[in-house]
Parts: sequence; structure tokens; C-alpha cells
Amino acid sequence: MGATLQALIYCRDPEAYRARLERLGSPARLLCAGSPEEAAQLAPSADVLFSWHFPPELYASARRLRWVQAMGAGVDDIVAAPALDRAVWVTRIVDQFGGMIAEYVFSELLARVRDHAALRLAQAQRSWKPFKAGTLAGATIGIAGLGSIGGEIVRKARAFDQRVYGLSRTARAYELVDRGFGQDEWLPFVRDLDVLVLALPLTPATEGVVGARVLEAMRPKSLLVNVGRGRLVREVELVRALQERKLSGAILDVFEEEPLPAESPLWTLPGVTVTPHVSGPSIVDQVAQFFHENLQRFAEGRTLQGMVDRAAGY
Amino acid sequence: MGATLQALIYCRDPEAYRARLERLGSPARLLCAGSPEEAAQLAPSADVLFSWHFPPELYASARRLRWVQAMGAGVDDIVAAPALDRAVWVTRIVDQFGGMIAEYVFSELLARVRDHAALRLAQAQRSWKPFKAGTLAGATIGIAGLGSIGGEIVRKARAFDQRVYGLSRTARAYELVDRGFGQDEWLPFVRDLDVLVLALPLTPATEGVVGARVLEAMRPKSLLVNVGRGRLVREVELVRALQERKLSGAILDVFEEEPLPAESPLWTLPGVTVTPHVSGPSIVDQVAQFFHENLQRFAEGRTLQGMVDRAAGY
Repeated sequence: MGATLQALIYCRDPEAYRARLERLGSPARLLCAGSPEEAAQLAPSADVLFSWHFPPELYASARRLRWVQAMGAGVDDIVAAPALDRAVWVTRIVDQFGGMIAEYVFSELLARVRDHAALRLAQAQRSWKPFKAGTLAGATIGIAGLGSIGGEIVRKARAFDQRVYGLSRTARAYELVDRGFGQDEWLPFVRDLDVLVLALPLTPATEGVVGARVLEAMRPKSLLVNVGRGRLVREVELVRALQERKLSGAILDVFEEEPLPAESPLWTLPGVTVTPHVSGPSIVDQVAQFFHENLQRFAEGRTLQGMVDRAAGY
Repeated sequence: MGATLQALIYCRDPEAYRARLERLGSPARLLCAGSPEEAAQLAPSADVLFSWHFPPELYASARRLRWVQAMGAGVDDIVAAPALDRAVWVTRIVDQFGGMIAEYVFSELLARVRDHAALRLAQAQRSWKPFKAGTLAGATIGIAGLGSIGGEIVRKARAFDQRVYGLSRTARAYELVDRGFGQDEWLPFVRDLDVLVLALPLTPATEGVVGARVLEAMRPKSLLVNVGRGRLVREVELVRALQERKLSGAILDVFEEEPLPAESPLWTLPGVTVTPHVSGPSIVDQVAQFFHENLQRFAEGRTLQGMVDRAAGY
């Protein structure tokens, strides 16, 4: 390997990752930065960057950098950074978030269909008010994005006896679903859905893909769930569609701007559930393990896991 | 058939069932009673009773009665009625409630693990407060009762990647689960569980089976879910166990007395969710269809579906 490999860990609590990586026996020297100032100092010495929301202007000074491992599944901010040399590899975490994100989706769908709001209120009033609950069974769910996250949503939808449609860039994934649609088939895809779930990466091809045209093609009783990225949806057009009852509601974990500004109408629109980007939490141990394995591969000159096609954007 | 077969429909809204049964082409003349007074008048003319909470003392005057079809899955009140002749057949609805009840169980478990209470409060305050959610995956769920309802709970637990234990009177059902326990093995069954779900029928063998001894064998962080019958649990002992933190909480849809009395401590005990017997709603169309098919079988002298073993009690 020649000179010692240096990996810079950048996030709010880099020491938590360093401790775990050292326990696993890191093949690299580990540097830690917890603020943009520290990152600016250490960026020029890093061969490898393991990071969450790295300040994009600092890529210009990272002259030794050969590889960036994102701490999450989405890498839209990294691939879009103009200062990041095209020759630098980018990898993302794969196969870790699907289970958690699918739990989020079904936790929210079930809370609505079983009317938890009414149940909790009745309990608070010591009031016994039976009613007939609805069911997820038999409804049609459409999942845009059939990667490892979409795949887990499909699997749970099957257990709830739903009909499952999917939209994907690659026809290979259609075997997972009852009906597959291509990326130019949004309108026929959404037309019959009870629930549309966005589990797509944010790329130039998907940015703003859910706008007025798609929202107007949805059924008035249908629901939008976004666990992908906020900018998949044109938020202004979503607000208008909700106000005009083009769809019945939305469950949103991601937004064009995060934190969601206090003045956003989404906080209080009827039928809208807002959550603060909690659907797919990183588990430090798992993310550290993923990076550790990739770091060993890197040190040994082997192919990396989760390699991003920077032209496709994911 | 000789004289015309007469079926008495007894529930709050018997006409809803009569309309459906007539549309299906009933082989019997259909009588309707919506109150105990009407039932008292019509009981002596009924060959068949299709009922929900029939007044048990009226069985004495039902001298032509040969068969009772319950409108639900539980028949504890019917088999326990001393005035019901031992020769009268009892049938219950089977294979209709599993999906709904399993949705109830996972809706409530997911709402806890994803902390919906905190999410809803933060949204009401327009406050962006991310946190790391827990997960159902990897937890051990134990299901007491592996009939059609327990079986559906097992199926959904698998989709959430849980370890599944089961307790059943019959070893045949053990193949569904990772570890099976017999009815005399409650203590080893509950010892390692994160969640104990009761999906048992109420019989002399199961009444009060979950009392202080079982509750004390549970882990302090574990949760009890009752979707069976209230009297499976000794409620006073459950309240004490919750107060003494022998377990962390309970999700209760059924109670010793229903409606749950306003003075019950369960309404306000920390960690307790109370719902008004809504986990397995009857769907009129499906229940009517089930009875219709059984009525045709009865008229043709064929075996009935959902036949209850009155000695076993279910």
C-alpha cells in the first residue's frame, strides 16, 4: 500500500464511528471531523472520506481523495457537488434501510386505516366507542423505485394482502410486482392506486417527477407517501393538489427543505402527516460494519459494495 | 325437508342480514329479532339460530332448535349457556377475522416502536425533532393460540423479521413457529418474549390462564397484547403487575367486562392502550355469506363449517 491510508470520518459524532472501526481493526488511519472547520483542516490529508452531509465546497481542497463512502442510501448531494473530481469513487449504503423504511410506511398506513387518532382520543376520555375499522387488504399500492428499499415495501405489502404495482427504470424488477411500469409510464401507473409510495433516488431524471400532472392523475381518495427525497415532489403543486382534493392525503418524511420551515402549509393541511426524516435511521454499528468491509476491499484493491454510477446519480 | 325450515336472525340489525340472505336465495324462511322481547316471541319457532349475544335464558323455550350459528369467532357465551340442549349443534365463523386482527396487532406494535405519540405531538407544534426509531425486526413475539387468527399473526410477524414462538393445545401447529409450547408450558413460553399475544378461545381450560404467575415470568420490558377474550387474563393481577413494572405495558382490545367500566384503572395506567373490541370487526357481507353456505349444507344434510366441539369449548 505504500504510505498509510488515511480515512476522514465526517459527521456530528465521528468518534462513535472511530471507536467501532478501531475495534473492527481498521486498515486505515482514522481522522475525525465534527464541524466544517475541522473538516477544512483535515480534507487535504484524506484518501478516503466516510461522511454525512460533507460541506461540498471542501471537495476542492481534498486533493488526495480517491473515494467517498456516504453514511446513507442517498448520494444526491455528493454526486451533484461540482468540486468533487469525476475520478473519485462514490459508494452508498445498500441493503440496510429497507426494513426500517418499510416499517415506517406500514406503521403510518395502519395508523390511518385503524383510526388511531379516534382510538387514542376515546381512551383519553374513558369512552367506549366501537367502530368498524378499515383494512389494508385488497388495496392497490404502487411503489416507485424497486431497489432494496422498494423491495422491502413490496414484501410487507404482500403480507398485508395488497395488490402491488411498481415503477422502475429497469424491467428486471417487474417480477417483484403484479404490474410493472417504466419511468415514462407515470400516468397509467398512478391511475388505479390507493397508495403511491416514493422510494426513488433523487437524480436529474427523478427530480420533481411528482408534480401537478401526476397528482391530477391520482384517485381523489388516494394517498401519497414520500420516503425517498423531498425534491422528487413539487411541493407547491402537492399543496395545491391537496387543497383541491385531487388526493386525500400525504405521509411525508422528506421535504424540499429540511427541517421543514415552520411556515410551510404542510404542517397543518388536513390529511397530511409530517415526520422529521426518521423513516430510515442509520444504525451506527451497521453503517460502521459496511464501511469497514468496504475499507478492507479498498485497501486490497477489490471492488467496492454500493458503488454509485455517477452519471445515473445512484 | 318436510316442513319449511325456519331460521331466526338475532342481533342489533337483523334486517341487514335478512336482505343479504334473501338476495343469496335462502333455503330457509328468515325470522328477525332485534330485541330480547322479539326473540322471546320467535324462539319457539326457530329450527336454526343465527345470532350475536342471544339472551341465554331464551334457549329453554327454543324447543325446535337444532343448530346455532354464531356471528363471530368466539362462542364462549353459547357453549356455557346451561339452557342450551347438548344435542344442538354450534358453529362459529372461521377464517374471516385473522387478517383484520393481525392488522390490529401490528398497527399497535408499530405505533409504539415508531413513537407515533411523539411524532404527532411534534407535528402539532410545527417542531422538527428527529430521533432514532426502534424496530420490530429481531424481536421475539409469542402467540398463544395458533388457529386461523394466530396463524395470520405469525404470517405478518414473519414479514417483519421477528422470531416467532407459539403456544397451542395441538402440536400440529408447531410447524408454523420457531418454537412451539404446549398448554402446560406457559412459563418457559413467556420467559424470553418481547411481546405476548393472546389469540386463544375462552374455555374452562383457558379462563384466567394469564395471571400473576405468568405475568411475573415475563420480562420487565415486555408487552402483553390481548385480542382473544378479556377473561383469559386476571385483570386485577394484570393491573398489579403493570403497577409493579413486571411488564412494560399492555395493548388490550378485550376485557373482563365490556364496555370497560369508566372506573377501571386500565384506562389511564402508563403503557396501556385500551381499544373498544375493534380488532376483528365482522363484515356483514362475509358473515352472511358464511351462514348462507352453512344453511345450504344444513338443508341438504351435509357437514357444517366451523363446527364447535362443545366439550373443548371452541
